[in-house]
Amino acid sequence: MKIGLDTMGGDFAPQATVLGAIAAYKSFSSGQQLVLIGDKEQTVNILQENNFNPDHFEYVHTTEVIGMGEHPAKAVVQKPDSSISLGFKMLKEGTIDAFSSAGNSGAMLVGAVLSVKTIPGVLRPAITSIMPQLSGALGILVDVGANADCKPEFMPQFGALGSLFAQHVYNVHNPRVALVNIGEEEGKGNVLCQAAYPLMKESKLFNFVGNVEGRGLFYDNADVLVCDGFTGNVILKFAETFYEVTHEKGINDSFFKLFNYEQYGGSPILGVNAPVVVGHGISSPEAIKNMVLISKKMVESALVDKIKLAFQ
Amino acid sequence: MKIGLDTMGGDFAPQATVLGAIAAYKSFSSGQQLVLIGDKEQTVNILQENNFNPDHFEYVHTTEVIGMGEHPAKAVVQKPDSSISLGFKMLKEGTIDAFSSAGNSGAMLVGAVLSVKTIPGVLRPAITSIMPQLSGALGILVDVGANADCKPEFMPQFGALGSLFAQHVYNVHNPRVALVNIGEEEGKGNVLCQAAYPLMKESKLFNFVGNVEGRGLFYDNADVLVCDGFTGNVILKFAETFYEVTHEKGINDSFFKLFNYEQYGGSPILGVNAPVVVGHGISSPEAIKNMVLISKKMVESALVDKIKLAFQ
Repeated sequence: MKIGLDTMGGDFAPQATVLGAIAAYKSFSSGQQLVLIGDKEQTVNILQENNFNPDHFEYVHTTEVIGMGEHPAKAVVQKPDSSISLGFKMLKEGTIDAFSSAGNSGAMLVGAVLSVKTIPGVLRPAITSIMPQLSGALGILVDVGANADCKPEFMPQFGALGSLFAQHVYNVHNPRVALVNIGEEEGKGNVLCQAAYPLMKESKLFNFVGNVEGRGLFYDNADVLVCDGFTGNVILKFAETFYEVTHEKGINDSFFKLFNYEQYGGSPILGVNAPVVVGHGISSPEAIKNMVLISKKMVESALVDKIKLAFQ
Repeated sequence: MKIGLDTMGGDFAPQATVLGAIAAYKSFSSGQQLVLIGDKEQTVNILQENNFNPDHFEYVHTTEVIGMGEHPAKAVVQKPDSSISLGFKMLKEGTIDAFSSAGNSGAMLVGAVLSVKTIPGVLRPAITSIMPQLSGALGILVDVGANADCKPEFMPQFGALGSLFAQHVYNVHNPRVALVNIGEEEGKGNVLCQAAYPLMKESKLFNFVGNVEGRGLFYDNADVLVCDGFTGNVILKFAETFYEVTHEKGINDSFFKLFNYEQYGGSPILGVNAPVVVGHGISSPEAIKNMVLISKKMVESALVDKIKLAFQ
């Protein structure tokens, strides 16, 4: 098993990414290999500074970098020797089994779709994130930004993708899937939710439990929370400030610490033919480590195969 | 000046509403009269239990009640002797200058539009709420639920309504108006935001400062935050849990206390021809008091006239 990591992606790369790789290495078993994609010289220097034997990793050297502000589609195409483009090329060819990066998230999404393509039957891939629950459980929020505008038929698919992810990567038994909405009853909400609700209700691919309102997002009403990418992104970014604010105020609470997204290592893209994880631009070494480990878990759990089966 | 209050509206009515009226009375000057609309006998009983002279208020007796779960439009029409229907009748006739209720919010919105009508030029009235800022300032969030689906041309109008409200009711000088979005640059977001941005930029009615993301909602990036009613309602309900959660955890922080929506007294409806405020169903006496006082402030500031002028 080969797990690819973009060492050039993210605001604190390559320092943070390489330190993250070192930390992730501890959780790698025999037969599992971390492949570092990026400027090899810089990478090896950092390893040596940290007394880490470079032989533990494989390297693919790159010369170009896709900047955070660059236009995603153009950059992926015009910079074939960037770590992101090369990473996807390798993923497509099967030289690596998973790829993650804290770089340009638009480029990651475009690159994933262009290279390994959407799983047959999946209308739109989605990006997921964790929505911590007061109970200590982890909720999966999907979509958090791949699809700012959605058609109703995407929503039950997001439900299925999220449910399979929760089940196989987080071992949630029979995940409860809810629709984020502005009313509890069927028939409530905007046009999208009104149309999506019956589609979700009739889906055989997951356990639909109805609507969840903004006031219920923390209260373990569901394991998977489905929404359009615009709503999901606003919720996600808003939730991230819970940690920032409590942290700045010196409030030391285990629940609010769950909103420190560092510990989750980023956002998996679900619905493409190989495991891809997008890390937060500001990823610390801890976040990079977790991003790598989630991508590894996606391979170990054969999640993509499970999704392919469900969407046949 | 006559300020109408529905004493039957809300989960804790009439106890909470009448106690709220008593508390609000302290802030009433000569020439300002509180008119209690609802079951007069129950109302007067509560006043007497609290050693409050019933002569301080005027009364309009009602016999019917619109329940929280009733269909808004039907209830307003079919129950003309309910406190909500009667309140709007009086508002329309000018017997009262403002009307507020913690009752069925759908009925409040429908009733407002049917009775006093939308101000000429306003495409859709909007409901606003406070979004507390870390700086201590109050942000105005609009729309929080009147319009689950929006057309781009509604958004600059929400901006103008929110700006006039912030200026005249909260004395904010030259309020900064932002579009809640999922990216900072112009051109970002869903189709609605992409189309709304240029319309907001070109509006002469307010000071547009660009996009604000979910991570920026607390950080005093704007005085007025504009979004569609679905997004606004999810944000609002989500934000309300900040207070609940910190409160339950015994976290005593002045910022999180700002999310106790009791202190704001509900949500003004902007864009109709008279001041109307919708209170939270679970309004306590404190919330009812503040709801009444906000409705009074809307009259004192001649807000409706200012809006009419702006939308001519």
